[in-house]
Amino acid sequence: MSASRAAVSATRIASKPIKPFSRSWSRPLSAARPAMSAAAPACHHSSRQLHTQPSRRAEAPAATDASNPAMSFPCLDALESKTATLEARSHASGPEPSYTSGATEVYHCKDPILLDWGGVLPEFNIAYETWGELNADKSNAILLHTGLSASSHAHSTEKNPKRGWWEKFIGPGGCLDTDKYHIICTNVIGGCYGSTGPSSIDPADGKNYATRFPILTLNDMVRAQFRLLDGLGINKLYASVGASMGGMQSLAAGVHFPSRVGRVVSISGCARSHPYSIAMRHTQRQVLMMDPNWARGYYYDRVPPHAGMKLAREIATVTYRSGPEWEQRFGRRRADPSKQPALCPDFLIETYLDHAGEKFCLEYDPNSLLYVSKAMDLFDLGAEHQHATALRRAERSDSLEASGGDFSSSTCSLDLPDTPYVEQPGQVPVDLNGPIATSTAPPADLVKGLQPMRDIPTLVLGVASDILFPAWQQREIAETLRSGGNKRVTHVELGEDASLFGHDTFLLDLEHVGGNVRRFLG
Amino acid sequence: MSASRAAVSATRIASKPIKPFSRSWSRPLSAARPAMSAAAPACHHSSRQLHTQPSRRAEAPAATDASNPAMSFPCLDALESKTATLEARSHASGPEPSYTSGATEVYHCKDPILLDWGGVLPEFNIAYETWGELNADKSNAILLHTGLSASSHAHSTEKNPKRGWWEKFIGPGGCLDTDKYHIICTNVIGGCYGSTGPSSIDPADGKNYATRFPILTLNDMVRAQFRLLDGLGINKLYASVGASMGGMQSLAAGVHFPSRVGRVVSISGCARSHPYSIAMRHTQRQVLMMDPNWARGYYYDRVPPHAGMKLAREIATVTYRSGPEWEQRFGRRRADPSKQPALCPDFLIETYLDHAGEKFCLEYDPNSLLYVSKAMDLFDLGAEHQHATALRRAERSDSLEASGGDFSSSTCSLDLPDTPYVEQPGQVPVDLNGPIATSTAPPADLVKGLQPMRDIPTLVLGVASDILFPAWQQREIAETLRSGGNKRVTHVELGEDASLFGHDTFLLDLEHVGGNVRRFLG
Repeated sequence: MSASRAAVSATRIASKPIKPFSRSWSRPLSAARPAMSAAAPACHHSSRQLHTQPSRRAEAPAATDASNPAMSFPCLDALESKTATLEARSHASGPEPSYTSGATEVYHCKDPILLDWGGVLPEFNIAYETWGELNADKSNAILLHTGLSASSHAHSTEKNPKRGWWEKFIGPGGCLDTDKYHIICTNVIGGCYGSTGPSSIDPADGKNYATRFPILTLNDMVRAQFRLLDGLGINKLYASVGASMGGMQSLAAGVHFPSRVGRVVSISGCARSHPYSIAMRHTQRQVLMMDPNWARGYYYDRVPPHAGMKLAREIATVTYRSGPEWEQRFGRRRADPSKQPALCPDFLIETYLDHAGEKFCLEYDPNSLLYVSKAMDLFDLGAEHQHATALRRAERSDSLEASGGDFSSSTCSLDLPDTPYVEQPGQVPVDLNGPIATSTAPPADLVKGLQPMRDIPTLVLGVASDILFPAWQQREIAETLRSGGNKRVTHVELGEDASLFGHDTFLLDLEHVGGNVRRFLG
Repeated sequence: MSASRAAVSATRIASKPIKPFSRSWSRPLSAARPAMSAAAPACHHSSRQLHTQPSRRAEAPAATDASNPAMSFPCLDALESKTATLEARSHASGPEPSYTSGATEVYHCKDPILLDWGGVLPEFNIAYETWGELNADKSNAILLHTGLSASSHAHSTEKNPKRGWWEKFIGPGGCLDTDKYHIICTNVIGGCYGSTGPSSIDPADGKNYATRFPILTLNDMVRAQFRLLDGLGINKLYASVGASMGGMQSLAAGVHFPSRVGRVVSISGCARSHPYSIAMRHTQRQVLMMDPNWARGYYYDRVPPHAGMKLAREIATVTYRSGPEWEQRFGRRRADPSKQPALCPDFLIETYLDHAGEKFCLEYDPNSLLYVSKAMDLFDLGAEHQHATALRRAERSDSLEASGGDFSSSTCSLDLPDTPYVEQPGQVPVDLNGPIATSTAPPADLVKGLQPMRDIPTLVLGVASDILFPAWQQREIAETLRSGGNKRVTHVELGEDASLFGHDTFLLDLEHVGGNVRRFLG
């Protein structure tokens, strides 16, 4: 390399030189450099007291001037074109989309319901579906709880022949045997599949609830479900069954209505939410709320926040599946290895996530996602939490009575806490060199909280490859119940030899999940 | 409950009635309902062939009309006010912010560098810092590699007395002993702390590279670092040391410059990126690119995409820490339990993430995050990948010579693959009932790829609570090296009895991480 080379390089800022290239600068990376001196003329050292990056105007300059071509962003083009399409459609045909999973039965309740955090629904609907006959003494009903975004359509019906999310698990002689049981699956309140939720009309003013919908809990959902059971004249369930959020609800049913639940099946759920899952749901809510189309929830007459929904679903999908399956299925394969890498989806795993988000982004109401996701965070079957809730409900009920039922005169503030959490710089909260407390005994508060389930036969099922509801959380449920004196707890943990599908195993694994449910129900 | 109650309820749509409330509707959730009939008058069943949610205009109606108060969103208020402040500041003082971590040495190289994917930097800077004296025969140099967003400021210097990210690990008699070693830490190219990156000026047209910066790889970063070593006259490193992305680079240095690396220390890294980590980085890039202020990378004269950066950092923070520590530190404590739950940050873990994002959002260049994060995804030390890269580099080098060094005449297309990955509905890629293939032997392609490190003493350290670079990935490195005949591999795995801090353990754990490094370096 010559000194004139360096001089030529130095002129590049002003003009674009054509100059001869030596192979030396592009030698294979693996070759050791024999001598050091050659590079020196083109390079030099300097020292800056405080360097700052120079920053000049650069508004997408023409690519031909640049050292390298400008990057293109087909994934953003696609989002923008989708927004334009939805805008045009909304102008042409009025408010869209309406969320539905198909035909259901609807139970309408004009009797108001008080929610755990003080909100009130003056009336509400529960949309539901059933399979199998209810017997004469109404003793064979199984209440099936759904996951966050799943609908009541667990199995095809005459009205709606579309495959359900547990199609293979339900049927004559199946894991949920329709020859023996009457299976009821409801859409949760707060959702968007026909049960009252944020997209529903507030009877007080005839407008969508939007983010005027009250904060709700999984217990509120279960409470509403039992209103439906009341209406159906079903005093006691043969069993309460659910996975994921449904596994949490299934436990809540056992705890809060112990005399009305014969058996509990809780799959890939937990007895209280944990920080990792709260954190992951937090990021989903934030990305959705950051989409300008979300408009603080008042988007029902406009373009919905499809981009935020898409990305929220992508984040969720990461937590639903897990490492071992993805290693086998995607590894590090790129969608098209002959192409340059892109900042838009590029690896197969990225295009998979992109597709999963795209499929979902107009199928579920964004506000429902916020409220139901938040309800999962708030879930806690510990005794202290239950007690505080009961007190709050009693107070609120009194104040409602005193105000003659004017439940909009709430004193609740929905503000952020005044002082957000501040991390202390350099503070390490645990003594790194001290012993780490790893208690294996279930927490006493939870033992007390699950005490009502003492006499309810319970199946708890966990999956080792689940990262969202890790297997230790189902072990916690089982050990807590046993500590409280429940002698009929069946605990099954599917190892990685049985399932690599992480949290979604309950949707896929007929043999291990379905088989255990069938054997337990007897 | 009387029929008149139901009738009153039915009128609520039109007006807001004052009506007496009975306690029955707010009875404690845990009370079993003695009789079913009471609720019936207020509720009824219906059946819809295909229900759709009614959807009317609802543009943030006045809260006083509604059944419940409207939710407030202080977290969005804060983002909007931050945007306004940045806008005002940008008008007042010109383009801001410039990214810097403080004073560094700068090595300027006018000799162009060809990157692995065909891009070219016609000239580049490497900003770096050093501690300890370089000895006479220049044999005591340790190259310390950084994590994704860390700067060269691993330890305070005279020029920059601010604490570094490995302050306690470096010093006289320390784990990296400045009495014995000359420690060099560089800022990676592609970053924003003084080494050439997307915020730098393209000499071809005097404007910021922005997203005209070429795709780069970790090997490119290492290649640039060795140009610096050339300039410093350092032929052979005493050791290459790094954690996280630095742990990957440390291996790359050993593989690509085996004759110039005396020892390798790789902490919480991997030999190739895996789908979960690619997926998590994908979501971070997407959320950033979705921020309208990102403007496809051309934001240097405007308000930067601070909201997207904040949330990207929050997602990253979830992967840096992990379950066990968070359980102890945050549990399910809310920031202010006396307040109503909010959709904005509410649980302590949420306010922690919010704070972590807020701290970072103006400290690091968003385009650098995209490029460096992508470089991590592209990392693969397998033989096949190395071979393909070498071929591509040779071809590109030839075409550059043929074109007389006009490296902007690239034929590269940065488009998305034409056919994105489409999941087959109902398709389960693995036979659920068949045996699961769990090979424990390291992959042959990786054994071959790491072959150049056969004679390099190597310390591989992993942490059981790490979810981003799980401990099996460090086991993979160690087993792969051993399979290839390397007899001087030290593998340490810190169990949950030693560290609960997940991926960030390398920043915190002086005893277990630092101690092992010190003992290994001798």
